[in-house]
Amino acid sequence: MQLLKEAILRDGVGIGTEIVKVDSFLNHRIDVALSTEMGKAFYEAFKDDGVELILTVEASGIAAAITAAQAFGNIPVVFAKKGDHRNVGNDVYTADVYSFTHQKMNTIRVSRKYLPAGSRVLIIDDFLANGEAVEGLRSIVQQAGCELVGAGICVEKGFQPGGKNLRESGVKVVSLAIVDAIEDGKIILRED
Amino acid sequence: MQLLKEAILRDGVGIGTEIVKVDSFLNHRIDVALSTEMGKAFYEAFKDDGVELILTVEASGIAAAITAAQAFGNIPVVFAKKGDHRNVGNDVYTADVYSFTHQKMNTIRVSRKYLPAGSRVLIIDDFLANGEAVEGLRSIVQQAGCELVGAGICVEKGFQPGGKNLRESGVKVVSLAIVDAIEDGKIILRED
Repeated sequence: MQLLKEAILRDGVGIGTEIVKVDSFLNHRIDVALSTEMGKAFYEAFKDDGVELILTVEASGIAAAITAAQAFGNIPVVFAKKGDHRNVGNDVYTADVYSFTHQKMNTIRVSRKYLPAGSRVLIIDDFLANGEAVEGLRSIVQQAGCELVGAGICVEKGFQPGGKNLRESGVKVVSLAIVDAIEDGKIILRED
Repeated sequence: MQLLKEAILRDGVGIGTEIVKVDSFLNHRIDVALSTEMGKAFYEAFKDDGVELILTVEASGIAAAITAAQAFGNIPVVFAKKGDHRNVGNDVYTADVYSFTHQKMNTIRVSRKYLPAGSRVLIIDDFLANGEAVEGLRSIVQQAGCELVGAGICVEKGFQPGGKNLRESGVKVVSLAIVDAIEDGKIILRED
């Protein structure tokens, strides 16, 4: 997606060989016009797949999930909660997800009642690297007896295995931008 | 706001005398049409106040912050991060916020560079009870040398002191629905 790629090249910061900082427009400060356009791009990518519900995980996935849901005509968004939430209750699906950012294991939780069996679910997240978060959400989709339509990702790190593994296991993964490498601080994006 | 009040009366769950569960449409599963309308309602309430930036805190405030930012013509959203974030770095404003939901103290953090001094900032959050989160965000706004335009809240618990304290200290607080009491499981909303 051209607008996102331009933002990454203009405002993204590459650190070392693995870290892509895009917190000036994606996951701390949010460029809302860009987020709205990303939502439309996810709609274009999955509009023929009968999406009924969008599933993401707090917190950085929520913005793109909301704008995508708007593009799909205001379908519901469910966001998985991390950690121990008094308010979520016990009637939940759970999955364990390792966070490289926080260097710890999180249990993510979704109330069973918000994932009706048979629902066609699109996973949205801001980043795909090793694929831990998407695999955790996918596990919850399976536990719920829902159908996974695919995964829409804002920024995929193409040099880490999450996207490859998901695609090889049959998941339709659409990433709006794929970072192939970081070289001397320069972010190298995959050509379309 | 009529749509939100109807949703609270139809789908909200009152527990004991203090807990209002609205996770079926506000803070776990999100009714995106309602969220979009809430964004417009915040715009109506603050449209003459020169809002330049919306500040919220992860995770439940993000949806309403995004839809409000859209209504304001795609102004930026900044969301404060909870806990220890490797990615946020050290050049941050911080505030300590007690979470009653999680029964622990969280440090919230915002990168200094995303709050330019002098910016006119609107705080948005999903809930206002004792006011801890809004007070923490307000402290960050002050540390940054920004101007606090006000606070837009989806659901205020009118029987807890946060809203009263903020208003008495001169903050323009606009809550789209105010819960005055929970009686025998019934949620009592304040009349307009």
